[in-house]
Amino acid sequence: MAEVAEEDQHLAEIRRAAARIRGHVRRTPLLRTDLSPTLMVKPESLQITGSFKARGAFNAVLSLIEREPDVTGVVTHSSGNHGQALACAAQAAGLRATIVVPEGVTPAKIAGIRSFGARVVTEGVTYDNREEIAEEIARSEGLPLIHPFDDWDVVHGAGTVGLEILEDAPAPGAVVVPVGGGGQISGIALAFAALWPQTAIIGVEPDGADDAARSLHAGTLQSLAADPATLAEGVKSKSIGLRNFDVIVGSALVRDIVTVSEDELKNALRVAWMRLKLAIEPTAALTLAACLTGRVPSGSVEHPTVIILSGGNFDPATVAAILSRTNP
Amino acid sequence: MAEVAEEDQHLAEIRRAAARIRGHVRRTPLLRTDLSPTLMVKPESLQITGSFKARGAFNAVLSLIEREPDVTGVVTHSSGNHGQALACAAQAAGLRATIVVPEGVTPAKIAGIRSFGARVVTEGVTYDNREEIAEEIARSEGLPLIHPFDDWDVVHGAGTVGLEILEDAPAPGAVVVPVGGGGQISGIALAFAALWPQTAIIGVEPDGADDAARSLHAGTLQSLAADPATLAEGVKSKSIGLRNFDVIVGSALVRDIVTVSEDELKNALRVAWMRLKLAIEPTAALTLAACLTGRVPSGSVEHPTVIILSGGNFDPATVAAILSRTNP
Repeated sequence: MAEVAEEDQHLAEIRRAAARIRGHVRRTPLLRTDLSPTLMVKPESLQITGSFKARGAFNAVLSLIEREPDVTGVVTHSSGNHGQALACAAQAAGLRATIVVPEGVTPAKIAGIRSFGARVVTEGVTYDNREEIAEEIARSEGLPLIHPFDDWDVVHGAGTVGLEILEDAPAPGAVVVPVGGGGQISGIALAFAALWPQTAIIGVEPDGADDAARSLHAGTLQSLAADPATLAEGVKSKSIGLRNFDVIVGSALVRDIVTVSEDELKNALRVAWMRLKLAIEPTAALTLAACLTGRVPSGSVEHPTVIILSGGNFDPATVAAILSRTNP
Repeated sequence: MAEVAEEDQHLAEIRRAAARIRGHVRRTPLLRTDLSPTLMVKPESLQITGSFKARGAFNAVLSLIEREPDVTGVVTHSSGNHGQALACAAQAAGLRATIVVPEGVTPAKIAGIRSFGARVVTEGVTYDNREEIAEEIARSEGLPLIHPFDDWDVVHGAGTVGLEILEDAPAPGAVVVPVGGGGQISGIALAFAALWPQTAIIGVEPDGADDAARSLHAGTLQSLAADPATLAEGVKSKSIGLRNFDVIVGSALVRDIVTVSEDELKNALRVAWMRLKLAIEPTAALTLAACLTGRVPSGSVEHPTVIILSGGNFDPATVAAILSRTNP
C-alpha cells in the first residue's frame, strides 16, 4: 500500500509538471513510420532546445521559483543537452544560469549554451571534477544546483513524456528509453507504473557504458571504471543517480536494460535518417538499435513498441561520416 | 459566380479525396521549431513512401477503382517519388503498376519502386521520351496512365495537405510550396481559395528551373529549354501541366513564385537537418531556402508562414557532402 501511495504521489507531481511546463515546451507528436507497423516513435529531437531535457529543466526552474521567489540564478554541470535546456529555461524565467562544461567540449555546444545568455565555466573543468566544481560555485554564490538527472523535479519533468505517450497510444506493449543518468527512464517509468503498469519499460545503453544494465541485474549501484568510448555522448554518466536507482532498481519499475554495440548504433543512425526521416543525434539512436537487433519486443499494431528518440543535437561532421559510408 | 462554383466543386473533390485516402496515408503533424516562432513546418517527408506524392497516388488509384472496378493495372513515368507512391498505392489496391524510369537513375530509387512489387521499365528511356513511352505502354496494354501532376485526382489528393494545415493553423499568413509540375501547389491553392483565400500561396523553384515563375509572370505557359542542373531533383519537369496552369495562372490562385540559388538550397538543407531536425531531401529545402533568404513574408505568431517540406527520399552521399562542409 505504501508503494502504491508513493506512485500516486509521483504521478501527481508529473501532472503538476505537465501543467507547469505547458506553453514553455512543445508537445511532440507520436509518429508511425514506414519501418514497421508495430513501431511508434516519440521524437524528442523536435522538442525545444533539441532534446527532452527541456522538460526537466523547465520544471526544475519553474518549481524553484514557486518555492523560492527571490532566487536569482541556477548552476549545473553538463557538456550537452541539459546545459542548453537549463540555460533556455533560466533565460525564459529571468534567472542567471551558470553551466560548468569540461574543457575541450566542441565550440558548437558552448555556443549553443551561450545563445541563451548563460555563463559558461570551463577553466580547469574535466569530466571527473565537473560536479565538484559546480557544487563549489553553487555554494560560494548561494545558488541552487540543478542536477541533470538525480533531482525529482527533473525526473517529474521527464515523466511528462510518459503522459503524452499514453494520450496518443493508450496501451503500448513496451516503451524503450536511452539510459545515461536515468532521469528520463525513471520519469517515464513512474508515469506508466501509476497509469498503465502493463507496459514494459526498457532501457538501452551502449555496450561500453553498461553501468545501469549491470546495476539492474546486480541489484546494487554499479559504476563505469573510466570515461566510456561511445558515439552516444548523452549517456556517458558513470552511474545512475540515487533517486533514479530507487525507481529503476529499488521499485523494480524498469523491466530490463539492454545494450548495443557501436556498429549497431551507427547502423541505427543511418536507418533513423533514411527510413524514419528524422535527423537525430547518436544517443537517440540507441533505442532504434535495440529494436533493429531484436533486443526489445517487436510489439503489435494494437500494442506497439514506442521508442524515445531523445535528441537531435548532432555534430554534422560525425553525421556526414556515417551517412557517406556505403555499407552501414 | 461561375468561378466560385468551380472552387466549391474542387473543394468537394478534395474533401472526398481526404475521406478516400484516410487510413492509407498518414496525417502529418504541423510543427513549430526553434528556428522562428512565426514559422510552421508541414513535414510531408514523414508521409508514407517519404513524400506528399502518396496522397495523389492513393486518390488516383482508389478513384480509378470506383469508376472502373475491373481495372487491373496502372502506368506512369517518374524517376522518383511519384513512381514509388503509385507503386505503393497500386500494391495496396491489388493493381499491377508499371513505372517508366529513365536509364541511369540511381539503383536505390529503382529498388524503392520494386519493393512495392511494381514493374520498372528503363530500356531506352530518357527524360525526354519517358512520357511518350509510358503512353505507348498504357495504350498497348489498355491501362490508364496516372500522370504525376496534370491529373485532377492527383491534384485533389495533394489538396488534402491544405485541409490539414487549416485544421492545425486556422489562418496562416502564407503557405510556401515547392513547384515542379505544379500538382501540389494547385491542390493546396484550391483548398485555400475555397476555405481561407486570405492566405498567400507562394511557390518556390530553383533558379535553373524557373519555368513556373516565368509562366506566372508572363501569363502564358513557359518551358525549360534543357534538363536543369539542380540538386532539387523533384522539380525538374520542363513545364507545369495544363490543369496546373489553369489553377496557378488562369485562376490566379498563386500569389507568387520565387526562385533560389543552388547555394541557398544547400544552406537551407543544412539548416533543415541541424535546426529543424528533419532529414529531408534537397527538393524539400526549397521552401526553407525561400524563407531564410527573405523571399517570402516572415509571418507572425497568429498568422505564421507555413512551409511544406515535400519529401525525405535523399541520396545519403549528397547529404553527407553538404553536411560536411564547414561553411555552408
